[in-house]
Amino acid sequence: MKEENDLKLEPLSNLTMTDRVEGKLGKYFKDKGLEPGDPIPKEVEMAEALGVSRNVVREALSRFKMLGMIETKKRRGMIMAQPDIMNSLERVMDPFILSSHDRKEIFELRLVLEMGIAHLLFARSNEESCQELEKIVQREQRARSEKERVLCDLEFHSTLYKIAGNDILRRFQKLLVPIFDYELAYELKLKEKAPQGKVTHQELLEILKCGTPSEFQNGMYEHLRPHFDRIE
Amino acid sequence: MKEENDLKLEPLSNLTMTDRVEGKLGKYFKDKGLEPGDPIPKEVEMAEALGVSRNVVREALSRFKMLGMIETKKRRGMIMAQPDIMNSLERVMDPFILSSHDRKEIFELRLVLEMGIAHLLFARSNEESCQELEKIVQREQRARSEKERVLCDLEFHSTLYKIAGNDILRRFQKLLVPIFDYELAYELKLKEKAPQGKVTHQELLEILKCGTPSEFQNGMYEHLRPHFDRIE
Repeated sequence: MKEENDLKLEPLSNLTMTDRVEGKLGKYFKDKGLEPGDPIPKEVEMAEALGVSRNVVREALSRFKMLGMIETKKRRGMIMAQPDIMNSLERVMDPFILSSHDRKEIFELRLVLEMGIAHLLFARSNEESCQELEKIVQREQRARSEKERVLCDLEFHSTLYKIAGNDILRRFQKLLVPIFDYELAYELKLKEKAPQGKVTHQELLEILKCGTPSEFQNGMYEHLRPHFDRIE
Repeated sequence: MKEENDLKLEPLSNLTMTDRVEGKLGKYFKDKGLEPGDPIPKEVEMAEALGVSRNVVREALSRFKMLGMIETKKRRGMIMAQPDIMNSLERVMDPFILSSHDRKEIFELRLVLEMGIAHLLFARSNEESCQELEKIVQREQRARSEKERVLCDLEFHSTLYKIAGNDILRRFQKLLVPIFDYELAYELKLKEKAPQGKVTHQELLEILKCGTPSEFQNGMYEHLRPHFDRIE
């Protein structure tokens, strides 16, 4: 509740005209219950109804197009579309433009996902996928440089996500990797080797073959232990 | 490698001029190594350099503004900014516009997060946060309707994310909830009660107080068992 002696003046909105039109249109699409495939009104009609220039409406629509929420069809004009939800996230996930706070949180988020995928993994792994992991582990054991080893490490974990069989999760993990590495490199600075936990990839693979999701989670925790230690 | 008898004709790009300018500018910002706070060239200069109209450049810049990657400052013109990474994701996460495939994947993603947060939770929970959970459990036990119970359920899980102390994770979970519920409602259709696992919120709280992250994960799995059964 506002206090009595508050000035009754509200701050002027610092939204641009495009921001405001974008907001209005978003609400309109929602209120009308428009679904993918449904046509939307013409640019000129919307401009007239909102009392703004066509340029402003075009700019706002361009944002929805970028999000994948609308698309232009030949002869049908603009229709609502099914957005690719990871698309816009992929555009902003750049370690060089994120704040250190966000990078830290993303570092943690990756740990959360690594711990959480165990059940999907056990539900969907098969002989073929275990062989794929086996090959990566063998390559890792033969690796001659730290760089080669790090690449095998990355491949092992990416393959786990592939096996887990969830595209959104996989794309999400892919986005997190560069941020995770950046954050890690920043912490390590001049150390030559990335920290390694007690449980190896080989051992994780054995658990996946013969163990339980719970054992896998415990193994993964030990594997990622140096990272968890930073949090705890 | 392309086959020899491939026609050497590449398909015409179906990108709009704005899409292409957006791509060019994104690459330019990256190649120049621009960071938050750095100024970017004037609209008119970019339009001249790219050989396109100012309107097209303005539309492309508007997209970057929407993503929070650039902002306009008084007297300084446009500068690079620190985007809010969840912002654009929040705009498209609407169960009514997502495909059923995406909804299914998001359903799983939520299960992955619930399983994965155990260690963050144990690292950051304290007496105060346990009391907060305790109150929710008590309200749940007194609940007189299924609706009231479902609200307590939601609050219990949201509070876990709050305790885990990671904003991105928390906002992410918040986004997933409506999709999860939609998917669940769709599955349940006319059933009156949401399926419940063997382990209760009360028991999860006890584990958080006196147990280990691994016990918590096992408990959470049993708690969410009816949902996992759909996957496995």
